[in-house]
Amino acid sequence: MRVGNRHYRSIWPVASTDGPRAVGIVDQTRLPFEFVTVELDSWAAVATAIRSMQLRGAPLIGVAGAYGIALAMFDSDDDAALERVHAELLATRPTAVNLRWALDRMRKLLRQTPRGRRAESAWAEAGRIAEEDVQCNRAIGTHGAGVIVALQNSRRRTVHVLTHCNAGWIATVDFGTALAAIYQAFDQGVDLHVWVDETRPRNQGLLTTWELAAHGVPHTLIVDNAAGHLMRRGQVDLVLVGADRVTRAGDVCNKIGTYLKAVAARDNGVPFYAAVPSPTIDWSIADADTQIEIEMRGDLEVRQVRGRDRDGHAASLIIAGAETPVLNPAFDVTPARLVTGIITERGIAAPNALASLFSESQVSERATT
Amino acid sequence: MRVGNRHYRSIWPVASTDGPRAVGIVDQTRLPFEFVTVELDSWAAVATAIRSMQLRGAPLIGVAGAYGIALAMFDSDDDAALERVHAELLATRPTAVNLRWALDRMRKLLRQTPRGRRAESAWAEAGRIAEEDVQCNRAIGTHGAGVIVALQNSRRRTVHVLTHCNAGWIATVDFGTALAAIYQAFDQGVDLHVWVDETRPRNQGLLTTWELAAHGVPHTLIVDNAAGHLMRRGQVDLVLVGADRVTRAGDVCNKIGTYLKAVAARDNGVPFYAAVPSPTIDWSIADADTQIEIEMRGDLEVRQVRGRDRDGHAASLIIAGAETPVLNPAFDVTPARLVTGIITERGIAAPNALASLFSESQVSERATT
Repeated sequence: MRVGNRHYRSIWPVASTDGPRAVGIVDQTRLPFEFVTVELDSWAAVATAIRSMQLRGAPLIGVAGAYGIALAMFDSDDDAALERVHAELLATRPTAVNLRWALDRMRKLLRQTPRGRRAESAWAEAGRIAEEDVQCNRAIGTHGAGVIVALQNSRRRTVHVLTHCNAGWIATVDFGTALAAIYQAFDQGVDLHVWVDETRPRNQGLLTTWELAAHGVPHTLIVDNAAGHLMRRGQVDLVLVGADRVTRAGDVCNKIGTYLKAVAARDNGVPFYAAVPSPTIDWSIADADTQIEIEMRGDLEVRQVRGRDRDGHAASLIIAGAETPVLNPAFDVTPARLVTGIITERGIAAPNALASLFSESQVSERATT
Repeated sequence: MRVGNRHYRSIWPVASTDGPRAVGIVDQTRLPFEFVTVELDSWAAVATAIRSMQLRGAPLIGVAGAYGIALAMFDSDDDAALERVHAELLATRPTAVNLRWALDRMRKLLRQTPRGRRAESAWAEAGRIAEEDVQCNRAIGTHGAGVIVALQNSRRRTVHVLTHCNAGWIATVDFGTALAAIYQAFDQGVDLHVWVDETRPRNQGLLTTWELAAHGVPHTLIVDNAAGHLMRRGQVDLVLVGADRVTRAGDVCNKIGTYLKAVAARDNGVPFYAAVPSPTIDWSIADADTQIEIEMRGDLEVRQVRGRDRDGHAASLIIAGAETPVLNPAFDVTPARLVTGIITERGIAAPNALASLFSESQVSERATT
């Protein structure tokens, strides 16, 4: 994505062949108010960035985790260090499966790699994971754009897409998942408009409006409460979101509030799609409701709102004091019965036919169960 | 309701028999951060208070409108003045029907009252409307508490009630509608807990947590997005809201986001009730979706968040700048098929049986159609 006159990815290696390594990121806690990049030079710095959501988005967290292991290997590349950093990074966010997928992939490779060569191997592998994410998202964008083009062909007017949270450039290494489809459709000339859910409590909708504005895509910000009303009035043609984990049965675990949009979409005959790269699919679990840990995040996310003060400076204020009990679940599960399709890099499948796109995962799953 | 050591209503007459009249109100734009009362001494001041939402809540707006007409009559009590103030006050908020109901009732009385006696008649009638609201809400509370008691008897554990927006003391003259039921059930010893939707964009959920805390009712604040997740996890036994207008068919027009909670409640087998005094029922319309005007409010309500700064002072900040397009519909319609029951001062009816509680309205409706 272009910011100003420069092309950025959301994470990039900062490396000399013999100097200290680091990864650069965009500090997402300061967006959209400030565009600030940060260098993370240790696995602990990566862990802190994931926890604080300087880095966010399931695919991006996975890539960051991979780089975190690589950074750790430059300090100490023995098996104990590998196990420790794997466990520590895995504990940063429990819900998105991409992190576990990337950490497991790194560990498997490094266990097969002799000490002394692990750091360079890990660094290269993290780069491959990042590159694969970009290629996945490009393909997701192509398949997803097809859904939007088909809607335009049947509607013959502006296509209104509703999205929740941010499944864009900055949730991935580049392009995004749900937003990749929107960008590609827009670039192909589709007359489209995006309703952007604010996405309380962290207001990631503002990251989405910032991205859409940068790409020139027409959009309107709404509060999360407004989505159902727009659907009832026929003003939404498609709900398109990313996901943090999709089960083999097609259940979609995504940002809190996604389920409310999905159940309203079904009530109004609006198609509901999730766009995910294959590392977001967790083939190992059967029941999303009992087997996915829903992260409970701190109450300050609800109590405190960030924005700009009168002078344009980043600022925050308290909307609910410590005397008010708060619960802050960060994700919910949309059951497969409410999902029209899952958009992947291999194409689009009905939720119950997801495995047909990934037959090798089926085989490996059968082998392990 | 008690605030500190004093009993308050949400609106009260400020009058000497021969001096200037006024009505006192609690400035709801400053709650829950500051408790400030304001005196409104003209119909124009009442209109401004309704528009700015210093006064809010369908029943309270109705009473305020009645007092507004009375204040106008002290200045000028001719027919032209009556028609003008009726029209001006009616235009302040389009969606809640209580305002129109109260203004029509005042106009009908005053047309039958000779000039010279109109001001005192109007003042007394506004007081009667206020008193009727209190009596209605007391009865609504009794009927609604029965629903909560029945849930406790069947569940035999804490009853979890989810509410949206503020249908409490400060949305009415006293007691509230949905919250009246909660207060009465709590006072009867029911073990209950209330999930309070934040209710973006104006965060009226914080008015509700403030009220519940004052009454000692256990409660937890959640973002609007979280309600569906809690229902899916079996953590909500009842959704209980107020309304701004209910049609004879039982469609419920209420604060934006109510429909999302109702459709999720249906998906999870959770009962959904709206608690309303009879002036909230609009017998005149058949189709809520086409015949109720959904108020579009200013975009600043979405862009700007109010709270307390670090020093505890009331403050605001901007979360989305003027470059971001915003749409801000203030209400939505929950169709009767998603409504378990309507709680009124006469008892509880299935939405399609509402007219059976109000046979005289049926007759008058038949006479006018």
